[in-house]
Amino acid sequence: MPKAALIMGSKSDWPSLEGCVKVLRSFDIEVEVHVASAHRTPEKVAVFADSARDNGFEVIIAAAGKAAHLAGVIAGHTTLPVIGIPVKSSFMDGLDSLLSTVQMPTGIPVATVAVGGGDNAAYLTAQILSIKYPELAGKLAAHRVKMAEAIAADDAALNASL
Amino acid sequence: MPKAALIMGSKSDWPSLEGCVKVLRSFDIEVEVHVASAHRTPEKVAVFADSARDNGFEVIIAAAGKAAHLAGVIAGHTTLPVIGIPVKSSFMDGLDSLLSTVQMPTGIPVATVAVGGGDNAAYLTAQILSIKYPELAGKLAAHRVKMAEAIAADDAALNASL
Amino acid sequence: MPKAALIMGSKSDWPSLEGCVKVLRSFDIEVEVHVASAHRTPEKVAVFADSARDNGFEVIIAAAGKAAHLAGVIAGHTTLPVIGIPVKSSFMDGLDSLLSTVQMPTGIPVATVAVGGGDNAAYLTAQILSIKYPELAGKLAAHRVKMAEAIAADDAALNASL
Amino acid sequence: MPKAALIMGSKSDWPSLEGCVKVLRSFDIEVEVHVASAHRTPEKVAVFADSARDNGFEVIIAAAGKAAHLAGVIAGHTTLPVIGIPVKSSFMDGLDSLLSTVQMPTGIPVATVAVGGGDNAAYLTAQILSIKYPELAGKLAAHRVKMAEAIAADDAALNASL
Amino acid sequence: MPKAALIMGSKSDWPSLEGCVKVLRSFDIEVEVHVASAHRTPEKVAVFADSARDNGFEVIIAAAGKAAHLAGVIAGHTTLPVIGIPVKSSFMDGLDSLLSTVQMPTGIPVATVAVGGGDNAAYLTAQILSIKYPELAGKLAAHRVKMAEAIAADDAALNASL
Amino acid sequence: MPKAALIMGSKSDWPSLEGCVKVLRSFDIEVEVHVASAHRTPEKVAVFADSARDNGFEVIIAAAGKAAHLAGVIAGHTTLPVIGIPVKSSFMDGLDSLLSTVQMPTGIPVATVAVGGGDNAAYLTAQILSIKYPELAGKLAAHRVKMAEAIAADDAALNASL
Amino acid sequence: MPKAALIMGSKSDWPSLEGCVKVLRSFDIEVEVHVASAHRTPEKVAVFADSARDNGFEVIIAAAGKAAHLAGVIAGHTTLPVIGIPVKSSFMDGLDSLLSTVQMPTGIPVATVAVGGGDNAAYLTAQILSIKYPELAGKLAAHRVKMAEAIAADDAALNASL
Amino acid sequence: MPKAALIMGSKSDWPSLEGCVKVLRSFDIEVEVHVASAHRTPEKVAVFADSARDNGFEVIIAAAGKAAHLAGVIAGHTTLPVIGIPVKSSFMDGLDSLLSTVQMPTGIPVATVAVGGGDNAAYLTAQILSIKYPELAGKLAAHRVKMAEAIAADDAALNASL
Repeated sequence: MPKAALIMGSKSDWPSLEGCVKVLRSFDIEVEVHVASAHRTPEKVAVFADSARDNGFEVIIAAAGKAAHLAGVIAGHTTLPVIGIPVKSSFMDGLDSLLSTVQMPTGIPVATVAVGGGDNAAYLTAQILSIKYPELAGKLAAHRVKMAEAIAADDAALNASL
Repeated sequence: MPKAALIMGSKSDWPSLEGCVKVLRSFDIEVEVHVASAHRTPEKVAVFADSARDNGFEVIIAAAGKAAHLAGVIAGHTTLPVIGIPVKSSFMDGLDSLLSTVQMPTGIPVATVAVGGGDNAAYLTAQILSIKYPELAGKLAAHRVKMAEAIAADDAALNASL
Repeated sequence: MPKAALIMGSKSDWPSLEGCVKVLRSFDIEVEVHVASAHRTPEKVAVFADSARDNGFEVIIAAAGKAAHLAGVIAGHTTLPVIGIPVKSSFMDGLDSLLSTVQMPTGIPVATVAVGGGDNAAYLTAQILSIKYPELAGKLAAHRVKMAEAIAADDAALNASL
Repeated sequence: MPKAALIMGSKSDWPSLEGCVKVLRSFDIEVEVHVASAHRTPEKVAVFADSARDNGFEVIIAAAGKAAHLAGVIAGHTTLPVIGIPVKSSFMDGLDSLLSTVQMPTGIPVATVAVGGGDNAAYLTAQILSIKYPELAGKLAAHRVKMAEAIAADDAALNASL
Repeated sequence: MPKAALIMGSKSDWPSLEGCVKVLRSFDIEVEVHVASAHRTPEKVAVFADSARDNGFEVIIAAAGKAAHLAGVIAGHTTLPVIGIPVKSSFMDGLDSLLSTVQMPTGIPVATVAVGGGDNAAYLTAQILSIKYPELAGKLAAHRVKMAEAIAADDAALNASL
Repeated sequence: MPKAALIMGSKSDWPSLEGCVKVLRSFDIEVEVHVASAHRTPEKVAVFADSARDNGFEVIIAAAGKAAHLAGVIAGHTTLPVIGIPVKSSFMDGLDSLLSTVQMPTGIPVATVAVGGGDNAAYLTAQILSIKYPELAGKLAAHRVKMAEAIAADDAALNASL
Repeated sequence: MPKAALIMGSKSDWPSLEGCVKVLRSFDIEVEVHVASAHRTPEKVAVFADSARDNGFEVIIAAAGKAAHLAGVIAGHTTLPVIGIPVKSSFMDGLDSLLSTVQMPTGIPVATVAVGGGDNAAYLTAQILSIKYPELAGKLAAHRVKMAEAIAADDAALNASL
Repeated sequence: MPKAALIMGSKSDWPSLEGCVKVLRSFDIEVEVHVASAHRTPEKVAVFADSARDNGFEVIIAAAGKAAHLAGVIAGHTTLPVIGIPVKSSFMDGLDSLLSTVQMPTGIPVATVAVGGGDNAAYLTAQILSIKYPELAGKLAAHRVKMAEAIAADDAALNASL
């Protein structure tokens, strides 16, 4: 069974990340969730990331805001793919979080999704894992169909109401 | 052998992407390179992306600038992981490229790297593929060691010169 | 009778677009409204845009937010004038939407209006159509007079209240 | 014969606008070119715009930089479609020009193209005129084919060089 | 008696401008208030500004938001000092208003105050008029003393509460 | 004879300010020029501004870059009109200078011109002084005519070259 | 006993600064609090800063918003370390405050913390003072442990709730 | 003798940091210089910062660009004051570096200086150390005098040349 981790810099980020866990589980991806801070619990973060591959993780998702170092710091401690979620902060809607997450130096990439893109981090995780777990490709395709149907339904409903 | 594609929106982006191909090859990742535009050759892009998984691709890297729709459009046509490289444009150093690439709607993520982050797109590709091809994990670890040694050497050289 | 289309990326954009339809109708411009997504229903968008001219449309208005690819993708599939409405997003009030819409590459322009400028997309549609349908020029001129009168009335009311 | 005007705020903008005139002429669109300033020659601008429709113009393109009021001021004096080209300024690559051009109030839209998008203003003009002059639709379609062929050629050339 | 004008682009700006009128009156500066739009009532604006000096005005204050052309357009029609108030808009808190107001071309300056700086436009008016009406210098100095006393009182109150 | 002062925060700002002095002199406005820093020579700045009105100055122009406090600090020490020139810095083309200059608190306005707007500070000075010195109104009007003629000449030259 | 000062530009900033005082006191750092304005009470600010070292202060914290000159002006009057808190303003969440505080010229630094970072100004004060007062190092280390424990507790609580 | 460390994320930052070392030495502050990366050599950084206080360091200066995590990561490993220098990057002149450095979470401050503010990091170091080493206060005061004299000389030279 594919396994991912979701690390958030602060428990206050959780409400915006519940969806991420929900999506992961809808794809039957096992997920371990942790609150850990690149600045307040640096050793914990380092130890987790250093041993993540050996502990069976295949993707690490990191969510943080403001000077969002968490994803980058984790990326420095593992060669697993690290997905960064820039959490919407109170400064320019998270421009700080976005730039701190995406502008990584050569050799240590962070796969960055949209500001507040918790759900998309999960979809991206499923897409990454799909190259190893073929059943995920089918589930993703099914989800795409569902999204298209939802839009068709919205289109029909809107036109019915006009 | 792992296989990736690198699609660029304009041939003029090539100089900033040569490094990406070089890095991919250093990891023995096969890479197919194409110039294709989300706006000028939309069918070509759609056909390529629709069939990419069947054609054996496992990661698609897309590089575009300004209103950089290429990565997002490809992502709408495949469930493979799509990595977006925001090409540095002449407007605010590529803020347009960055936002057009990263701010994707729910369900269709693009794994975005730094503006001009061609090399990192390749490293991220290797990290993603490493969950399926274990030999890549070793190569990535070796590369990390090499980077650390380079920094140690820089540190020594700088201190020698002081 | 002149005919336009209004395509929105998400049904949630509708409240900010009702005014657009209302203005179009006030000019007796027929309008077809659709929910369709450049990423979730790409074929639907492509088919619609490819055949829009043949189907009698003369202007296509596209509204989308965040990485707002909808107008640009439609523009890549038609030579009709495409008007882009950057929908106000939760990131920097839609700077992402604006740049994703307006910064189009050479050859595939999108006629971009203000962030949240649904009504203006309709006025622009009327202005474009007025070069073919002279009665629209008269209606537009009348509307300009009405706007000027409203301001004169505001001026009078304000001065009366001082 | 379709007729457009290109008004620029300063003669120094001309080098970035030559392409616009060239593209217009490639579509056999007659174009009158003027230097005129919303601030330094306001009457000239007002008179030109007030009488533009009567003088046979069908589209007005306005190019200006910094506090780029030209397109908006023209738009206030005509109900013809007005295309705004935000000229790249020395401040944040023309963010001032872009916002001054695109953020128009309700009722007076400016069809804004990319910063420095002179050529696209011409393509947009042709697209707008194509709803009245059907031969333009054919020319535009031909141009799209040419663009696609150029990209295919670039793709081939790049792959030949790899 | 010194005389100023306050022109606002929309009646909806009035609540943020009442303070401006109040401050002007506290300095016994006569003020004429008008709603007028650079785009919707351009002739009215031009006529007002062209004749402002002859009509005894000595300073014109213009307040507008978004693509805020009002101050600049007025400045193009008079050699009186024109003060621009960038009204806080719904886009990036009025960055559009600020840049549209302040980035004027050489020869046609607008004396720009802070975004939403209605009161300061009035204080600046008094300062400008003080070079001709010496009694204003005294009133301004008295106001400065009052401001300093208010801060001293705040300081005392805060320290009393600690 | 009207008298102004131009204070710059650093001698390195001089090249961008020579035009300001030239324009002032073309209007026969006496100008005293000083290098003085709000941070490095605060007393000098305070003393100058405190006594400026008594010393016959009628307008103070202050030019500074980065955290551009100079205009604001001077404004806190005088009730004369203070014009701020945000000097183009190496950070975002002077966005720091602009915001530090224009965003003044209530009661202490700075009349801000465009980033790098040295010449416009001089024209604004002339416009301010024109309310007291009527001959300046005439000179300003003559300058406006000259600007309009220059644009007409540019227009003619451009059309001759087409 | 170590002694610091906290100067705020406006009493309205107090609510966001109470935490700063609380943190300082938790480290047994004496703190004097003042409302004083770089623009409205410039002499008071100058006198305070000029004599701060002689009066036993060792760190000065200054909080201001918009064109936030307070920290910089204080820094120009003392060689004590000055910490600047950019207060969140109503313009782009305090981008103006941040740039006005941090972009100081060479020779007159301001130690800037995050926008709204009142508490961090206090922690930074304690860290600075810890080089002289060793007991503070211990208290800071203890606080770090407490923060890490809080995160561990959050982690446990979150996992318990999943 | 007071002792500081200067850590830079990349040897390529050195040219912009030489001045920092020079200023530190002009104050007789011992400085150890290292190249070390938060991402490429995370252990080295952690070990250095963890033991810095025990090793006699009193201030740590960290310089990094783009997603500049270095200062923040060091700050998470020490309770010494950490000064962050946002290195000017190729993206928006270092806005990424600035926000990544300054927007630190509560409890782990970084004392941030201007983008590219290497020299100011040194002056701030001297100011911080001056609270423990009184001779530094004298040297700083002398430097302030020298700066003021340089400006007075610039003022005289400029006036002589007018």
